[in-house]
Amino acid sequence: MFFEGSEKKVEIITASTHGSLRLLGLDFWTQIVSLAKADIISVIDNQHCDAYLLSESSLFVWDNRIVMLTCGLSTLIDSLLALLEHIGVKNVAFVSYQRKNEYLAHLQASTFADDIARLRQYIPGKACRIGHLDSHHHFIFTSDTSLIAAQDKTSELLMYHISGPIAQYLTSTKQSVEQVCERLGLSTLFAGFNLDAHLFSPLGFSVNGIKDEQYFTIHITPQEQSSYVSVETNFDMADSDNPVAAQLLALLQPISWDSIGFNVPVIAANQPKNICLAHCTYPIEQNYQVYFGHFQQLGTEILNPELM
Amino acid sequence: MFFEGSEKKVEIITASTHGSLRLLGLDFWTQIVSLAKADIISVIDNQHCDAYLLSESSLFVWDNRIVMLTCGLSTLIDSLLALLEHIGVKNVAFVSYQRKNEYLAHLQASTFADDIARLRQYIPGKACRIGHLDSHHHFIFTSDTSLIAAQDKTSELLMYHISGPIAQYLTSTKQSVEQVCERLGLSTLFAGFNLDAHLFSPLGFSVNGIKDEQYFTIHITPQEQSSYVSVETNFDMADSDNPVAAQLLALLQPISWDSIGFNVPVIAANQPKNICLAHCTYPIEQNYQVYFGHFQQLGTEILNPELM
Repeated sequence: MFFEGSEKKVEIITASTHGSLRLLGLDFWTQIVSLAKADIISVIDNQHCDAYLLSESSLFVWDNRIVMLTCGLSTLIDSLLALLEHIGVKNVAFVSYQRKNEYLAHLQASTFADDIARLRQYIPGKACRIGHLDSHHHFIFTSDTSLIAAQDKTSELLMYHISGPIAQYLTSTKQSVEQVCERLGLSTLFAGFNLDAHLFSPLGFSVNGIKDEQYFTIHITPQEQSSYVSVETNFDMADSDNPVAAQLLALLQPISWDSIGFNVPVIAANQPKNICLAHCTYPIEQNYQVYFGHFQQLGTEILNPELM
Repeated sequence: MFFEGSEKKVEIITASTHGSLRLLGLDFWTQIVSLAKADIISVIDNQHCDAYLLSESSLFVWDNRIVMLTCGLSTLIDSLLALLEHIGVKNVAFVSYQRKNEYLAHLQASTFADDIARLRQYIPGKACRIGHLDSHHHFIFTSDTSLIAAQDKTSELLMYHISGPIAQYLTSTKQSVEQVCERLGLSTLFAGFNLDAHLFSPLGFSVNGIKDEQYFTIHITPQEQSSYVSVETNFDMADSDNPVAAQLLALLQPISWDSIGFNVPVIAANQPKNICLAHCTYPIEQNYQVYFGHFQQLGTEILNPELM
């Protein structure tokens, strides 16, 4: 009953010399997604964005931007290299590639170091690890490209070992998409978003949401001993009128969580009561900052030995 | 500049049907150690014990007991299986086999699950993981043998990311064995022990100590970003007259540490100021308890991104 929830993530911004990425069409994206060992399950769109729900997470395509996340044993680097081949590096304004610490890193097809060695054969860039290897950490590569979108804001909230009634519901046998959405309060947290949600068998829940140029995606791996929930958006999750991150933390009660912000400071929350064990501000360029914070519930957890 | 400090550990207790393990001789132990991809560097002995300092940690041999620890990319399971073949499972009263979480688990020749699948072909036993996969954790196998040494007491203190003047000295270019022993205060902490200490090139320090039937061993991997110090002993490290664990924690100022006790409760310490993030009591038999505690310095660490 193990599933590796933690994601690899790619973002590509194309230069004005390149046509709209949305015109590349379903067959093209199906092929790109298959290179990562994933499938397209469904798609929603609006005037700005095509949002694909994948068997392993999500793909968002705007006219000049792609965000793709894949979890499990997916090989996202293969999708990224194929995209760079197709788009042409000269038409690329910016690339970032991330991996989070995995629960079982030895099962992955490659390490982050392997991936960036291949990536650097296409495009030069800076790469680093933020966080200790024996704790939560985050690998990030960003291309050395002059055109950096300083307006680019993304927040990621990564929750580990969720608990409480919703965590229990998410491992129960009789779930429905509607009930999960309702219990998470998605229609309030993300009012006005068009949603595309899916329950996986035996367990797991994914949802994409789009509203104008805003997007969010939530992926839940509820498996006991290795539960993981990721939330990613270009929406302000710390907005005082609608503190999405704080509300999801209070609902899902993780033992520990990370907040990663691109040009958005790390999100603090009051519930569950917590301590920030470690944080970092990492300047990639003058106007482009990566923030990382690793939080842990205050109090001592009583561990249950897992028999093997 | 990476070295995997975290150890695998074997303990074997032989039944009274078996002769003294100390009579097996240097050639035998050299061969056993080589199966783990390690070498014997030196040996000290007393009336009760032969203590071998290894290129990857330590081996202690008493008449009816072996404790062997190996770090790096060593394959301790191969030594253990060869020992079981030689001794004969019918002459074995008890076996335990442990692994700690590794910094870079994917570099290891095998996983704990791989190892115990092989071990269980020789001897049945219980195995479990204590601690979450995304945090400090500890794997342990113990044989299903009727003869359990309830008097068997062992304390392990595992320190991660040491800091302060001694940590700095341990990464400096001009060290001496004498200076390391003096700065650690070994002659006071372990008064009356016969010591065998070694400095490794480019970095690293190991010491074995024996006094009557007591032993201790300290292994220091001081490399920045992946520093690790282990202390293991059958001596009472929480003794109020000589609180060895508390004194070593105060000297080495780790960011986080684990305390593992076999029939010895987890050791608490005041300095550095800390929080117990998680703990566990794991009963193997009625009179045999494993204690695990994972501690972290209070306060927020400011992380330095490590360029790749």
